[in-house]
Amino acid sequence: MAAAVDNIPKEQWAQVVEQKGGPAVYKQIPVQTPGPDEVLVNVKYSGVCHTDLHAMMGDWPIPTKLPLVGGHEGAGVVVAKGSAVSELELGDHVGIKWLNGSCLACTFCMQADEPLCPHALLSGYTVDGSFQQYAIAKAAHVARIPKEVDLEAVAPVLCAGITVYKGLKESGARPGQWVAIVGAGGGLGSMAVQYAKAMGLHVIGIDGGDEKGESVRSLGGSAYVDYTATKDLVADVKAATPDGLGPHAVLLLAVSETPFQQATAYVRSRGAVICIGMPANAYFRAPVFDTVVRMITIKGSYVGNRQDTQEALDFFARGLVKVPYKTVGLSKLQEVYDLMHQGKIVGRYVVDTSK
Amino acid sequence: MAAAVDNIPKEQWAQVVEQKGGPAVYKQIPVQTPGPDEVLVNVKYSGVCHTDLHAMMGDWPIPTKLPLVGGHEGAGVVVAKGSAVSELELGDHVGIKWLNGSCLACTFCMQADEPLCPHALLSGYTVDGSFQQYAIAKAAHVARIPKEVDLEAVAPVLCAGITVYKGLKESGARPGQWVAIVGAGGGLGSMAVQYAKAMGLHVIGIDGGDEKGESVRSLGGSAYVDYTATKDLVADVKAATPDGLGPHAVLLLAVSETPFQQATAYVRSRGAVICIGMPANAYFRAPVFDTVVRMITIKGSYVGNRQDTQEALDFFARGLVKVPYKTVGLSKLQEVYDLMHQGKIVGRYVVDTSK
Amino acid sequence: MAAAVDNIPKEQWAQVVEQKGGPAVYKQIPVQTPGPDEVLVNVKYSGVCHTDLHAMMGDWPIPTKLPLVGGHEGAGVVVAKGSAVSELELGDHVGIKWLNGSCLACTFCMQADEPLCPHALLSGYTVDGSFQQYAIAKAAHVARIPKEVDLEAVAPVLCAGITVYKGLKESGARPGQWVAIVGAGGGLGSMAVQYAKAMGLHVIGIDGGDEKGESVRSLGGSAYVDYTATKDLVADVKAATPDGLGPHAVLLLAVSETPFQQATAYVRSRGAVICIGMPANAYFRAPVFDTVVRMITIKGSYVGNRQDTQEALDFFARGLVKVPYKTVGLSKLQEVYDLMHQGKIVGRYVVDTSK
Amino acid sequence: MAAAVDNIPKEQWAQVVEQKGGPAVYKQIPVQTPGPDEVLVNVKYSGVCHTDLHAMMGDWPIPTKLPLVGGHEGAGVVVAKGSAVSELELGDHVGIKWLNGSCLACTFCMQADEPLCPHALLSGYTVDGSFQQYAIAKAAHVARIPKEVDLEAVAPVLCAGITVYKGLKESGARPGQWVAIVGAGGGLGSMAVQYAKAMGLHVIGIDGGDEKGESVRSLGGSAYVDYTATKDLVADVKAATPDGLGPHAVLLLAVSETPFQQATAYVRSRGAVICIGMPANAYFRAPVFDTVVRMITIKGSYVGNRQDTQEALDFFARGLVKVPYKTVGLSKLQEVYDLMHQGKIVGRYVVDTSK
Repeated sequence: MAAAVDNIPKEQWAQVVEQKGGPAVYKQIPVQTPGPDEVLVNVKYSGVCHTDLHAMMGDWPIPTKLPLVGGHEGAGVVVAKGSAVSELELGDHVGIKWLNGSCLACTFCMQADEPLCPHALLSGYTVDGSFQQYAIAKAAHVARIPKEVDLEAVAPVLCAGITVYKGLKESGARPGQWVAIVGAGGGLGSMAVQYAKAMGLHVIGIDGGDEKGESVRSLGGSAYVDYTATKDLVADVKAATPDGLGPHAVLLLAVSETPFQQATAYVRSRGAVICIGMPANAYFRAPVFDTVVRMITIKGSYVGNRQDTQEALDFFARGLVKVPYKTVGLSKLQEVYDLMHQGKIVGRYVVDTSK
Repeated sequence: MAAAVDNIPKEQWAQVVEQKGGPAVYKQIPVQTPGPDEVLVNVKYSGVCHTDLHAMMGDWPIPTKLPLVGGHEGAGVVVAKGSAVSELELGDHVGIKWLNGSCLACTFCMQADEPLCPHALLSGYTVDGSFQQYAIAKAAHVARIPKEVDLEAVAPVLCAGITVYKGLKESGARPGQWVAIVGAGGGLGSMAVQYAKAMGLHVIGIDGGDEKGESVRSLGGSAYVDYTATKDLVADVKAATPDGLGPHAVLLLAVSETPFQQATAYVRSRGAVICIGMPANAYFRAPVFDTVVRMITIKGSYVGNRQDTQEALDFFARGLVKVPYKTVGLSKLQEVYDLMHQGKIVGRYVVDTSK
Repeated sequence: MAAAVDNIPKEQWAQVVEQKGGPAVYKQIPVQTPGPDEVLVNVKYSGVCHTDLHAMMGDWPIPTKLPLVGGHEGAGVVVAKGSAVSELELGDHVGIKWLNGSCLACTFCMQADEPLCPHALLSGYTVDGSFQQYAIAKAAHVARIPKEVDLEAVAPVLCAGITVYKGLKESGARPGQWVAIVGAGGGLGSMAVQYAKAMGLHVIGIDGGDEKGESVRSLGGSAYVDYTATKDLVADVKAATPDGLGPHAVLLLAVSETPFQQATAYVRSRGAVICIGMPANAYFRAPVFDTVVRMITIKGSYVGNRQDTQEALDFFARGLVKVPYKTVGLSKLQEVYDLMHQGKIVGRYVVDTSK
Repeated sequence: MAAAVDNIPKEQWAQVVEQKGGPAVYKQIPVQTPGPDEVLVNVKYSGVCHTDLHAMMGDWPIPTKLPLVGGHEGAGVVVAKGSAVSELELGDHVGIKWLNGSCLACTFCMQADEPLCPHALLSGYTVDGSFQQYAIAKAAHVARIPKEVDLEAVAPVLCAGITVYKGLKESGARPGQWVAIVGAGGGLGSMAVQYAKAMGLHVIGIDGGDEKGESVRSLGGSAYVDYTATKDLVADVKAATPDGLGPHAVLLLAVSETPFQQATAYVRSRGAVICIGMPANAYFRAPVFDTVVRMITIKGSYVGNRQDTQEALDFFARGLVKVPYKTVGLSKLQEVYDLMHQGKIVGRYVVDTSK
């Protein structure tokens, strides 16, 4: 360890998943020492994401480490760094994100597609994450957070914000064009609406119920289609664009499979349908004839790379994206999971590691 | 009519579909007069495409005109032109292709995506095509064929060649990268292999049987996977690339649905699966999880625009693409359809309108 | 002529340049009849552009027609159309822009680069333009103006607005990135600042004097560098970006040569310098070493194509771009030229053809 | 040091520049030990590049280290590696290239533009290079060379080959399009012709003299323009393309300034002029008017990034690019410099570090 602040404790509080299916156990565990290319981050706040629940339940195709400290939206301060770390200083504010590290040498890393690295380390999944007071991350991968940014408010941006921003980039939609956001009233969706607006796009929100419609409009959406109320979703989405040809891009943030079967019907010819949400065991399905003669693109978009991360944070730092959240102590994490399991969460939860 | 050669007859021989389901009837019909922005083409040769059979059978979602003169791979000579046609001369060699005309003023035409024009005219489908001695086409849309190019040999390029070339362009694969071609041993496939090679790509042919494998290799394919013989298609296709990560792009020229379900499994992460073939009622289907975390693109590619047409013809004119074909008289068209119906056609058929 | 309104006069008022160097003479001339692919537009208002002065003076490399009716920012109503025009109706609101027509069949037109067409017709330069009450234009090329848009206010957008929007598109700058606009306080510049903001870009205005700085800031510019006051222009422009690396793109709207020699010094590595302004006899000049090792792009951007036109108008129609202008009667055109010649014009002038 | 082979000596032979202006002194110096993220490479062969002469003479804007071991086309074997190096094994074949290392964390590195990294280490310039038997390089940056590739033959590809390949990529020229290569008969030029052909491009070689013309044609060039013999270079280059509009791209490999002033005159409208060669104190100069109305792009292209490196090597490994070279002992380096200084070198020189 090349450098460290004085007051790093030996033990710390953490939420530990000890077996597949959980629960998360709030307990004291040792603080780790960073390797040569790593930093130790004193996590102040961490967002809680649906993925953390998947990790605890072990219901995704890729297995997690066990025991596991979850969390991948951690905002904190560098308190120690390894001998090979030159580009970060003690005291820097950083974010621990889904991509904890990657090899930086494979063909994907060489092309700035670190999330596709076969040696990628995933925070709160294949390595311990941000639901602890002191977490390890690869120095090259932690998000750089300007000091004037509030660490509590920025936490949910570190996964949700970056992911929707990346999806909008991948869509190829240009300023002045139209994008439909499926799940626009949810946590990711409300960030997506704001990023889209800040990128000069016109937004059609798609979600269920009046309350979500009000949310979409209040964030600057140009139109809202309520799938629980419409008689013809496809016709309504197309009609929401001035020329009736449909949106240039669709962002699928939904957590159920149905929207993945509908989107190619209302996207504009030559348009792009971007898959981001990952409902368990879901399949994308589209008629070949229509896909061909209308030259439609369907594209999966995963988390952002390091550059996407900095760009997404910059929009937040400039006040262009606001994220509503509730904060509870880290000790209450299991209660958040319980609410999530019951589908009772509106917006994002943040945990404060000091409580 | 602004200009015309002297010897245009009043009547001509044509193959006419008089009712849905056929057959095509060989008979004499009047020669038409071109409108102000049209040319009259003395068709010398025309390729016969599977689409022509679909048009006669009426089994695609879009209805045809009736009675119908089919054909959309017609190579011939301009013999008359309308008053607004300045960029073509009598005697020019031109091709009548699938896209007979488009409005040149809608948002798609403005962006050089004429095949997506809602007012597109389709040769041998919504307007009479090239299975006659004198056919009408919009001057702005006929393919310009250099005079040194053989009209008989070039006919099949006018649809099949352009379509596979367009698909390769849309794939985004760069010289030095790998492309898998599904259906590489068929008529379209053998052209696709040659275009891919001429574009600096490495080809993995996928098809059934030894004979098709020999064809793929003889045309310059780097590898061949026989789906009738392999125990693990996905593993074999990936293994055919030097780093085992799979091809950067996949071209789906298949006429059955199964390959459309397999391609996302062997394409490289960040790669593109291009749908070109249109098996009746087929669906594309892919797991959402994999599509997202591997950032896979699925894209429909239709026929080329006017620029793609000229580029595809240029490869042919330079001798980089050879198309094996058999020529019969136009009067024998129904026999070609019968063979096609029975799945007995290897390579492409060309009809000679003088017989 | 396929269709026309009833009350088209035989004679009309126009401003005619009868010899190289001018002046423009206000007189009555015959109203023309549109050809098969043309429309006759009752011009209501026309913007006056510096290019109109160049056309009258004849000081650009390409000669004009003579006698010449200038003008290429004409907003009006379709009152007659030719026999081949199907996509426009009498009464439609349209704009006559710099590109009056193009062949729609050459390799550039095929790729939606109509402004590069070797057969392009230029309004108020190689064909008569909008400084008359009734002007001819190719139907495929007139700008489509929604009826709710004010014809007086939109006139200056038809050249100036489209041109700066096109330049911003060509720059490749993405939402969230920084663009320096040289000449940000002028007529084109103030539109460029607004388009850039609406496209999600951060703007550094470069111009001379406090008044222009206030204009830049009031339109949403993030920074302003006064070239008359700075001691180190290059350092100041770079310092205006948060990381000090300089803007991702530079738009050169200047009418003098000096800025064309400076821009590569402050643009970010891998950034793009877009040339739009065309000072007479000016040269672009940059050190080869720096251009290479910093991988800088220098790019000329001409007027927009038809799609760019519709996009630029859409930003205006949504109220995202305001253009300050003064309106005088068409009969006063020579007075506007005189002011322009003396460099006394701030903002844009519009002429009302009814006066 | 995490791992090393047994027989690494303490001292080795090297060519050392002890003062600005040279000469290079052949002497024994200590073998260094790699840091945690570095490898020690037993250099077998190294190409000699014009840049090495610039480095010795100190006539470029950026100062070199002193004393300096030059060389940046070194091909050899990994004989030791640092503790943080996991992706390379002892015995791997690797290349030491111009970019010895970069921070992998700045905004340029994050976007795979490592050559623009402000902390870049340059082999044989800011750090010791390949004109020694044992050289240090950052593990993430050494080129991976397949073991079946001949280390002697591949050496010149490590800078010259990668650089011209990168330039062709940056040009945006697509298979089937035309590229003019200025300096096509020289060392870089002959590689560029071969890469261009392998990428499906048509080549117009530009150089002086018959011998160079024969070289261009023998390597597959479609046309040759001899600037010492032509009466109108611009007309001849344009005439070499079938439609007379000029090449889609131009690669400037020249070592004099004149071609940098000519290229925009013959490149096709919308085409790209790529600057690669760096004549001392040269300026690029182009008329603004023409650059704008023809929408020409001028672009600097530096050395390739890591991915470009692997791609360029792959073309070589497949036998698509041959590099003629002469090999002499490392002890004779100064004699090569002397020849270079006198302009007497045809093709590339390689030094063998064992002699």
